[in-house]
Amino acid sequence: MLIRKYRVAIVGATGLVGQEFIKVLEQRDFPVSSVHLFASERSVGKKLFINHREVELKELTPHSFDPVDIAFFSAGNEVSQHFAPVAVKRGTVVIDNSGAFAMHESVPLVVPEVNPEDLEHHRGLIANPNCSTIQMLVALHPLHKANPIKRIVVDTYQSVSGTGSAAVDELNTQTKLVLEGKSAVPHVYPHQIAFNLLPEIDVFLDDGYTREEWRMHEETRKILHDDNIAVSATCVRVPVVIGHSESIHVEFSEPMSPEKARMILGDSPGVKVLDDPAVNLYPYPWSVVGSDDVFVGRIRRDASHENGLVIWVVADNVRKGVALNAVQIAEHLISKGWI
Amino acid sequence: MLIRKYRVAIVGATGLVGQEFIKVLEQRDFPVSSVHLFASERSVGKKLFINHREVELKELTPHSFDPVDIAFFSAGNEVSQHFAPVAVKRGTVVIDNSGAFAMHESVPLVVPEVNPEDLEHHRGLIANPNCSTIQMLVALHPLHKANPIKRIVVDTYQSVSGTGSAAVDELNTQTKLVLEGKSAVPHVYPHQIAFNLLPEIDVFLDDGYTREEWRMHEETRKILHDDNIAVSATCVRVPVVIGHSESIHVEFSEPMSPEKARMILGDSPGVKVLDDPAVNLYPYPWSVVGSDDVFVGRIRRDASHENGLVIWVVADNVRKGVALNAVQIAEHLISKGWI
Repeated sequence: MLIRKYRVAIVGATGLVGQEFIKVLEQRDFPVSSVHLFASERSVGKKLFINHREVELKELTPHSFDPVDIAFFSAGNEVSQHFAPVAVKRGTVVIDNSGAFAMHESVPLVVPEVNPEDLEHHRGLIANPNCSTIQMLVALHPLHKANPIKRIVVDTYQSVSGTGSAAVDELNTQTKLVLEGKSAVPHVYPHQIAFNLLPEIDVFLDDGYTREEWRMHEETRKILHDDNIAVSATCVRVPVVIGHSESIHVEFSEPMSPEKARMILGDSPGVKVLDDPAVNLYPYPWSVVGSDDVFVGRIRRDASHENGLVIWVVADNVRKGVALNAVQIAEHLISKGWI
Repeated sequence: MLIRKYRVAIVGATGLVGQEFIKVLEQRDFPVSSVHLFASERSVGKKLFINHREVELKELTPHSFDPVDIAFFSAGNEVSQHFAPVAVKRGTVVIDNSGAFAMHESVPLVVPEVNPEDLEHHRGLIANPNCSTIQMLVALHPLHKANPIKRIVVDTYQSVSGTGSAAVDELNTQTKLVLEGKSAVPHVYPHQIAFNLLPEIDVFLDDGYTREEWRMHEETRKILHDDNIAVSATCVRVPVVIGHSESIHVEFSEPMSPEKARMILGDSPGVKVLDDPAVNLYPYPWSVVGSDDVFVGRIRRDASHENGLVIWVVADNVRKGVALNAVQIAEHLISKGWI
C-alpha cells in the first residue's frame, strides 16, 4: 500500500510553538515528504533539524506555499491575516493558531477529541482554538454529552510559555534578579512576573473582560455548537514556565456525581484522571510538561450548586494547547481523506 | 486624660506572623505597657526588639498568662487548643489565629470592617478568620449590604508565606536549584512549589474540598450571619512570597453594575479600588506587600449570570490576613471598653 506523504510548512518555526511542532511531527511519524520552515527576518538563513535532516529557515513570500500541502501557522495575527488567505488560494490547507479566524463562520474551530466532524466541509482554512479553551473542552465535552452544561465559571493559572520564548526568558531573568535582591524591570509583561502574577492576558475589551477570557466564552459555544452555554472566565498569568491550570466550576442540567464524572472521564480520549487526595494525587504544571493528555483532578460536588461539579484541569499548553492539537487536526483530515 | 495601657503577649513570636505582629503593634502605636514573647523551645532565650526595647523569648507554661491582658496566638492548632483556654481562665483576652475555635458557637469570628459588633459579648476568646476569608469579606461585605449575596464562586492564588517561613525558604531554595538545572526535593509541600503550583491547602476532607476551602464557606456564613450564602472555593498555592489573590464570581439578589460596585467599594473602610484596564491598573501580589488595605480590581459584569459580578481581590496575607486584623480586633475591644 502506498502511503501518501505531504509537503508541510511551519510558519513561525523558531518560536517555542514552532519547536514543539517539529517535535510533535517527528514523534508522531507524520507522513512528511518535505518540510518548509518560515521565520521572521532575523532568523532567515539559520538551519533547524527535522527528522535528522537540516532545513533552512526562509522568509515568507506569496510564493512560499506553491509547494506546500499543509501549513501550520503560529506567527501571530498579522502574519496569519496576511498570508493564510494567500496560502489557501494556492491550494494549501492552513491550520492557524493565531485566533484571527477562530470566530469566522466559514472557518472550522476544532478540538479533535470534541468536534472532528466540523472539519469535513472546511474550505482550506481551519482554526486551532485558544490553549485555555482546548484543555477545558477536552475535559468537559465528555461530561457535556452525558449531562448538558448550562454554565461554566473558570479561573486560569497560565504559564509564561503561552506568551512565547521572550516571556520565558523574562521570567528566568527577573527571578534571578529578585533572588539577588535586585529590582526586575518588566519588558514583555506590563508588570513584574517573577514571584508575582497578573490578571491580564491579551487585550482588555469594553466589557472589562480580556480577549483571552472572551475567547473561552465564544470558542466554547462555537466548538460545542451550543449558544446557551455561558462562560465566565478570569485569566491569570502565573510564574510557571510550561503548563496551564484551570479551576472549573460547572453547572449541568442535572446533578452529576463525582463518581460518574470520574467514570466518564476515565474512558474519554485525551483525558487522564489523577485524583486521589489521600496520597496528594492531582495534576500540577510541573508534572504535565511534554504530555499529550489533559489531566483532571480534584473532582468534587460543588457545595454551592445542586447541579454543580468542580474540577481541576492541567495540560501542557505548548503541546496539547497548540502544536499537538493542530497536528491532530491534520491527521484527522488525512485519515478521512478530507485533504 | 489617662490612657490605659495593656500587657500584651505574642504566642509564636519568631514566625513570619509573629514578626508582623511586632511591626503592626509598633506602627499603630498600640497602647502597650509590657510585651511577652513566646516561642518554641529552640528559640527560647533569644531576644527580639519591640519599640526599641529588647524582649527575651520565653517558653509557654500555664503561668505565662498571669501578667497578660491580651494575647495574640499564632503558633498552630495544638498550642492554641492547649494554652488558649488556660489563658482565658486566668483573665487574658485571647485573639487566636489557629482556626481551632473559629466555628465554635460561643467564639466571635471577626473581621473588624464587617462584624465588629460580634465582639461585644465575647467570653475572652476571639477567633481571627482565615486569611483568604478576611480579604474576600472586606471586599464583599459592602456590596452584600447593598444587594444581598446568594452565591460566591472563588478561586485563590495563595502565597507561600501563608504556610510560614519554612515555606518561603523552600520556594527560594527550590527556585535557585531549578534555575541551576538541578532537581528540587520538596520538604514543606508534598510536591515542588518553584515554577509550579499546587491545588492543595490544608488537609482534604471527605467531600473532596480541603479544609481551607471549607473554611471560606463556613466562615463566610458565620461572619455575615447568613446561612443561605453558598461558597464554592478552590484554593491554590502559587510560587509567590507574599500576597494572596482571589478571583471572585458573585451572584447577588439583583443585578449589580460595575459602576455601582466601584462607587460602593470606593467608600468602604479597608478597601482600595485599583481598576483601570486602559493603563494596566489592577492589584497584584508584588504591589500590595506591607499595605493595610484590601485591593480590588477587574470589576465587571459576569457574562454568565444576570445578577453576577466578577472581581479580583489582592491583599497582604501576613498583614491584613492575620496580624493587622487581630490587632484591629484588640483596638476595637479597647475603644468600646469591651476589655
